Amino acid sequence: MKVLVWNEGVHERHQDPPNIGEYYPEGIHGAIAAALRRLLPGAEVSTATLSDPEHGLGEDVLAATDVVLWWGHVAHDEVDDAVVARVKRHVLGGMGLLVLHSGHFSKIFRDLLGTTCSLAWRNEGEQELVWNVKPSHPIAQGIPSPIVIPRQEMYGELFDIPDPDDLLFISSFAGGEVFRSGVTFTRGRGRIFYFSPGDQEYPVYLQAEIQQVLANGVRWAAPAPGERQAPDVTNPPRQWVL
Amino acid sequence: MKVLVWNEGVHERHQDPPNIGEYYPEGIHGAIAAALRRLLPGAEVSTATLSDPEHGLGEDVLAATDVVLWWGHVAHDEVDDAVVARVKRHVLGGMGLLVLHSGHFSKIFRDLLGTTCSLAWRNEGEQELVWNVKPSHPIAQGIPSPIVIPRQEMYGELFDIPDPDDLLFISSFAGGEVFRSGVTFTRGRGRIFYFSPGDQEYPVYLQAEIQQVLANGVRWAAPAPGERQAPDVTNPPRQWVL
Amino acid sequence: MKVLVWNEGVHERHQDPPNIGEYYPEGIHGAIAAALRRLLPGAEVSTATLSDPEHGLGEDVLAATDVVLWWGHVAHDEVDDAVVARVKRHVLGGMGLLVLHSGHFSKIFRDLLGTTCSLAWRNEGEQELVWNVKPSHPIAQGIPSPIVIPRQEMYGELFDIPDPDDLLFISSFAGGEVFRSGVTFTRGRGRIFYFSPGDQEYPVYLQAEIQQVLANGVRWAAPAPGERQAPDVTNPPRQWVL
Amino acid sequence: MKVLVWNEGVHERHQDPPNIGEYYPEGIHGAIAAALRRLLPGAEVSTATLSDPEHGLGEDVLAATDVVLWWGHVAHDEVDDAVVARVKRHVLGGMGLLVLHSGHFSKIFRDLLGTTCSLAWRNEGEQELVWNVKPSHPIAQGIPSPIVIPRQEMYGELFDIPDPDDLLFISSFAGGEVFRSGVTFTRGRGRIFYFSPGDQEYPVYLQAEIQQVLANGVRWAAPAPGERQAPDVTNPPRQWVL
Repeated sequence: MKVLVWNEGVHERHQDPPNIGEYYPEGIHGAIAAALRRLLPGAEVSTATLSDPEHGLGEDVLAATDVVLWWGHVAHDEVDDAVVARVKRHVLGGMGLLVLHSGHFSKIFRDLLGTTCSLAWRNEGEQELVWNVKPSHPIAQGIPSPIVIPRQEMYGELFDIPDPDDLLFISSFAGGEVFRSGVTFTRGRGRIFYFSPGDQEYPVYLQAEIQQVLANGVRWAAPAPGERQAPDVTNPPRQWVL
Repeated sequence: MKVLVWNEGVHERHQDPPNIGEYYPEGIHGAIAAALRRLLPGAEVSTATLSDPEHGLGEDVLAATDVVLWWGHVAHDEVDDAVVARVKRHVLGGMGLLVLHSGHFSKIFRDLLGTTCSLAWRNEGEQELVWNVKPSHPIAQGIPSPIVIPRQEMYGELFDIPDPDDLLFISSFAGGEVFRSGVTFTRGRGRIFYFSPGDQEYPVYLQAEIQQVLANGVRWAAPAPGERQAPDVTNPPRQWVL
Repeated sequence: MKVLVWNEGVHERHQDPPNIGEYYPEGIHGAIAAALRRLLPGAEVSTATLSDPEHGLGEDVLAATDVVLWWGHVAHDEVDDAVVARVKRHVLGGMGLLVLHSGHFSKIFRDLLGTTCSLAWRNEGEQELVWNVKPSHPIAQGIPSPIVIPRQEMYGELFDIPDPDDLLFISSFAGGEVFRSGVTFTRGRGRIFYFSPGDQEYPVYLQAEIQQVLANGVRWAAPAPGERQAPDVTNPPRQWVL
Repeated sequence: MKVLVWNEGVHERHQDPPNIGEYYPEGIHGAIAAALRRLLPGAEVSTATLSDPEHGLGEDVLAATDVVLWWGHVAHDEVDDAVVARVKRHVLGGMGLLVLHSGHFSKIFRDLLGTTCSLAWRNEGEQELVWNVKPSHPIAQGIPSPIVIPRQEMYGELFDIPDPDDLLFISSFAGGEVFRSGVTFTRGRGRIFYFSPGDQEYPVYLQAEIQQVLANGVRWAAPAPGERQAPDVTNPPRQWVL
């Protein structure tokens, strides 16, 4: 299984927040990749960022990748439309996609879902409780309920997404807000998992339960051998004689 | 439209809690019926309780009723199985059903859904915030988000129900728990709405927003003229010649 | 209620097929509009086509329209991207949308759903049977099962759409293929209904049952008074103190 | 993985139809078990029938079983209610269940779904085409579309089931009817797959594609290690201090 952790990588370059290097010395992508390597033995995990040629998302790379994780925030508009179209084509053909936190506003997520993907938010570093509401789902199996995240940005409803295939996690925040923090979608042959915990200001991706959710998500989203194929927009007619 | 508000009516008879008569002088059913009469002009709203003959749910009554609201708590086991089967048959044939609060453990709800319908709970009279997560749904249209309920029993996940058709409301509680507090189901031709706010200890059904949700629910669950029919378990074969 | 029937109108201009003027003397849009005027007394029904300024879909028109019906086939690429974005914004804000037959490949449908919306097809004028699989839904209520369409183009699976909110109709064809021919979606506050019967070569929109499905669809998709609002992509944070 | 193929076994005992022993010399259950042993190396596959003590479905057996397949037809009423309740409890706790063909009217299926599960039917040994409408689902992956079954009983809509989690297969029949022939449900922690092809009169379970669907279904429905647990109907309250 080949996994690619994509991060715009801008907060890291700008040291914004100033202490981001303390908890994410290799960047958000580096922390996630390290966790996946440990939890998914045998998986080949690589990383790419916005500043790489073609954002590190060339045709050859995507064709050889089973699952992409996507973290973006301040630079959504700088992602090239042609690259977004390419990623979308591969997702529709069966490549898995995990969209993380502020990636809710990424071009790829909005193009795949068709809605604004807007939400309410407030950043005061308050406690988030992540409740597991579908423990039989492969992503949620064995995940404790709730996951307690000591400090996190608040993401709240109304989350403007289509009805998900499965609602796996609901979060509450110290202010009383709620959020559908773990949801799945299928688009074409591709499985998509959105998971909101994880902000550049707090070391959420260092928590073991969060890492386990991501590893479960990667396993779930990966296409089965032979499953993946180019999306076919010109299906030929077929004739059946009874 | 004919609406029947059913309440086991045991808390009221036993004055448990002692002050229930202060906020519900006509019983929980009486308070709900009064609100529906005001909000649904033209609807005929009646009430029935466990101690009525056939619990007030005879064949003739049900055949003439468009929507039943169901409140029960301490006497679920005393509801006659034959009556439950009768209500179920009418729901499958198109009669609407609103299941309220502790009615989650009623025989009729569990028989229609097939699961245990269990949940976590704690009664400390804490604040509940009811968030509207599908404002385009006829039940949720125009309902403010959140509804603030000053004192209420906590109902929390894991709520053991099948995936609902629509998730309309998610609640959070002062303790940090979350709950899918407004969910819809279709079974046969019948539309079902479960709404959790409303406990015998707190005057929740006197809140205007809660009353509006119930009125919206009744309108949504009522069968269209000519829609209702006995569930048919012996469909005849049909032959089509091409 | 204001309804706008949009048709690219190219088949009519080109008299392709040559006899299209016999069964659709006022165009496909004219036939649909006439049926809706008859079945929805009180509705204001107008029409627009590709060759109108802004395709007849200016900001003022859309802001005053409750439901748009969309028929397109050979000229999807000629629809202006800015107009598509405008229609999408209004759908996300609550305007209803009915997408008809070959409109499955329209820009607006693909942008709202995120998938290729491809399907299998064969045009041999064969019989289509449209089975009603959710008779309790407002669109399907009272619609006979099956609707028999004597001659129609075959549309078959795999239909590359996200899982619909509701599956209302499944069609079979003389060749043995099946198709999810009536499906609903919610995107933002907007309700969307796709209904496949209706090709430029066959007078399908003159059938009474087909007209009734469209009228039901318009009623279902129309926003409630006060429901509609501009989609808000910059929700402000909200603070709740417990 | 431990798999139990349950068959009422009455058609086999009564040699009804007379030639059932030619294509199913070991019974329907024997044929299915043999296929699963071949396709699921490492799985322990056993069988049980109505005439076994406790129908072969004792507490110890169920506690040690990962997935039950259920075939019944003429003897649904003879299945003991206590055994049905026991199977249901284990499904809600995480045991997988595959319900086959005429098992749509079994007590266990109707108790888990809450509806009549009725359908239209006609037995004239006509061709069934089983179309794969969700090829990315683990059960449908790699299954050709359509599967051609030369002779089979017709099962048609309206199939009175709740909306399934996933619709995997839609069948058409020579008479023009359609049927949702492969559908999944989750109830409690248990995954349920209903698959309609397979009648006592036709050797459908000897077809390789049908066998592959069943094997995929067993793999999909089996609980993960540690996932299964007794359904808990008395969840204790939990207190979280923010």
